[in-house]
Amino acid sequence: MTNSPPAEPTQPESTRPDPNTQPAQPASDAAPVIGVDVGGTLIKAAVVYADGQVGARAEEPTPPARDADTVLSAVVSVVAGLRERARSEEPPGDVAALGVAVPGIIDEQRGVAVVAANLGWRDTPVRALLSQATGLPVALGHDVRSACVAEWHLGAARGSGDALLVTLGTGIGAGVVSDGRLLVGGGYAGQLGHVVVDPGGARCTCGQYGCLATLASATAVVRRYAERTSGDTANADLTARDVAQLARTGDPVAAAVWGEAVTALADALATAVTVFGSELVVLGGGLALAGDQLVDPVRDRLLARLTFQRHPRVVRAAMGAESGVLGAALLGRAALLGRAALLDAVPAEPAR
Amino acid sequence: MTNSPPAEPTQPESTRPDPNTQPAQPASDAAPVIGVDVGGTLIKAAVVYADGQVGARAEEPTPPARDADTVLSAVVSVVAGLRERARSEEPPGDVAALGVAVPGIIDEQRGVAVVAANLGWRDTPVRALLSQATGLPVALGHDVRSACVAEWHLGAARGSGDALLVTLGTGIGAGVVSDGRLLVGGGYAGQLGHVVVDPGGARCTCGQYGCLATLASATAVVRRYAERTSGDTANADLTARDVAQLARTGDPVAAAVWGEAVTALADALATAVTVFGSELVVLGGGLALAGDQLVDPVRDRLLARLTFQRHPRVVRAAMGAESGVLGAALLGRAALLGRAALLDAVPAEPAR
Repeated sequence: MTNSPPAEPTQPESTRPDPNTQPAQPASDAAPVIGVDVGGTLIKAAVVYADGQVGARAEEPTPPARDADTVLSAVVSVVAGLRERARSEEPPGDVAALGVAVPGIIDEQRGVAVVAANLGWRDTPVRALLSQATGLPVALGHDVRSACVAEWHLGAARGSGDALLVTLGTGIGAGVVSDGRLLVGGGYAGQLGHVVVDPGGARCTCGQYGCLATLASATAVVRRYAERTSGDTANADLTARDVAQLARTGDPVAAAVWGEAVTALADALATAVTVFGSELVVLGGGLALAGDQLVDPVRDRLLARLTFQRHPRVVRAAMGAESGVLGAALLGRAALLGRAALLDAVPAEPAR
Repeated sequence: MTNSPPAEPTQPESTRPDPNTQPAQPASDAAPVIGVDVGGTLIKAAVVYADGQVGARAEEPTPPARDADTVLSAVVSVVAGLRERARSEEPPGDVAALGVAVPGIIDEQRGVAVVAANLGWRDTPVRALLSQATGLPVALGHDVRSACVAEWHLGAARGSGDALLVTLGTGIGAGVVSDGRLLVGGGYAGQLGHVVVDPGGARCTCGQYGCLATLASATAVVRRYAERTSGDTANADLTARDVAQLARTGDPVAAAVWGEAVTALADALATAVTVFGSELVVLGGGLALAGDQLVDPVRDRLLARLTFQRHPRVVRAAMGAESGVLGAALLGRAALLGRAALLDAVPAEPAR
């Protein structure tokens, strides 16, 4: 990819695939790869070329059955369609690897979906299953961390060795870059949305009370506004961005909900910065569509909460809704290049 | 050292020191090294042999002037004395490297004390200064992280890839092992004591209010008990362990103070486990001298706070007050072996 850092192989020289001894494998570094983002609602996928350009795209509903067999079959079918389309593009390209992002507790290092809550999978060896079904080198990624890989390698966190990349959508997740590496923690790292900021507060989907996600996810902002303006059915299609706009134009309920989200988020970020030593915080997802209306007050409150700690820059994510697919493709390319994981790549330009 | 994991060189083969071409340097892997722990009160040091045995020890007050020149001169003098004593031991040993642990914001990777608050140092290139003064390979370490290196390589966290090693003493610090590496974060990682657990609570030395350290450090437990039993001057030499004992024997004030410390610590640990994905929590320092009386209730409350997160084991530290010196010595040995830092070593036996 144009913007990706130089390869930092994590395998010793001798065990890396040698194209000369594996003539059957189309291991050209320039070959296109496919990135797939498996969500609870949609399977999104795209062919991504070595220069970072996106070719053919595909999108289809996640099968309602949601079991691993059914969903992975759908993924295999999407991949087969995209491979065919890549062959008929000009110049024709043989897809050489596959990266797949899945939500849940995902262990990238073992290639296993430990728990994929929305999908109901458990200990599913996704990498092995898809590799067998497609014959391609496969990388498994976590949905939020994959989006973060894209943001880290191509977007707002380029070159940072200590960054916190937060996605504020249906839930809240974080990709944590520390000492130039993306933390995995057996698949459990970065669950910022489940830091308790309001003890005894609203019950979270996780079973705990007062998690950050109950106050500052895009879903929570919409739900909390709707709850306080109950009966107003015109709000059915309301988004978090709409609530932000209402707050800006003087709606007191919207202003209160927005302010509580900002406060909760800044407090959780203060905690995260205190334990990680982050130099950069990148805010993405639905809530970040509000732009400066989110970033500015979060930055102000966060910096006011910090004393001796590192004072991070706070910026908005540069990548859009395609970041999951792009990040999965980056992971796929890393698999193609024989690296254990792109997660271990040290960025080219330290930001300090 | 007997128990240290195998070397995992972070430098490429070609740039590692070659003993054959550097005959002047006593680069034998078996040579003794010196570990020094520079505290606000004492400079502690010891000669440590390759098999992990501790030889000559030294301890002297930190010079009251505390500026870097004066303190580092004292360190150089302690080191010179220990080198002399190592030469006169049987068998005589030439000290081959030096590791020095310092409190504050310490960037092990650059060898710089960014801020050493108790000592008043700022951006002090400790590694370069001591290397020049002693002619030895030198590693600079953070005091808490050095103690954690000892605990990780020789103590209760041996073999864990995702551990949280917490020291509860004058303040509270943590060494974070994540994906088999100790996090540095430019020197800022692991400041667990400054996670806010009691918003609007007591003012912390850092300037913030309600930090964990205001409730659960050994110092805080003693201070809070003394405050609530004011006038009782017999408590002048009280330790946190004494407060624990009073709590156990039915003293209601001690029980309240101890319970508040346990709750605050467990809540901060729940947050840390949520963002790091730790599989193991090791409690050390003065507060942990209470043993099961600390570990058991902290474990109970921590596990009650977690839902989908990893449920870590919670244990007491295995190393004593010498862990800072031993960890510094381990870092010194890593410098001797030409590794950028022991911090990058992946433990030999994954605990999963």
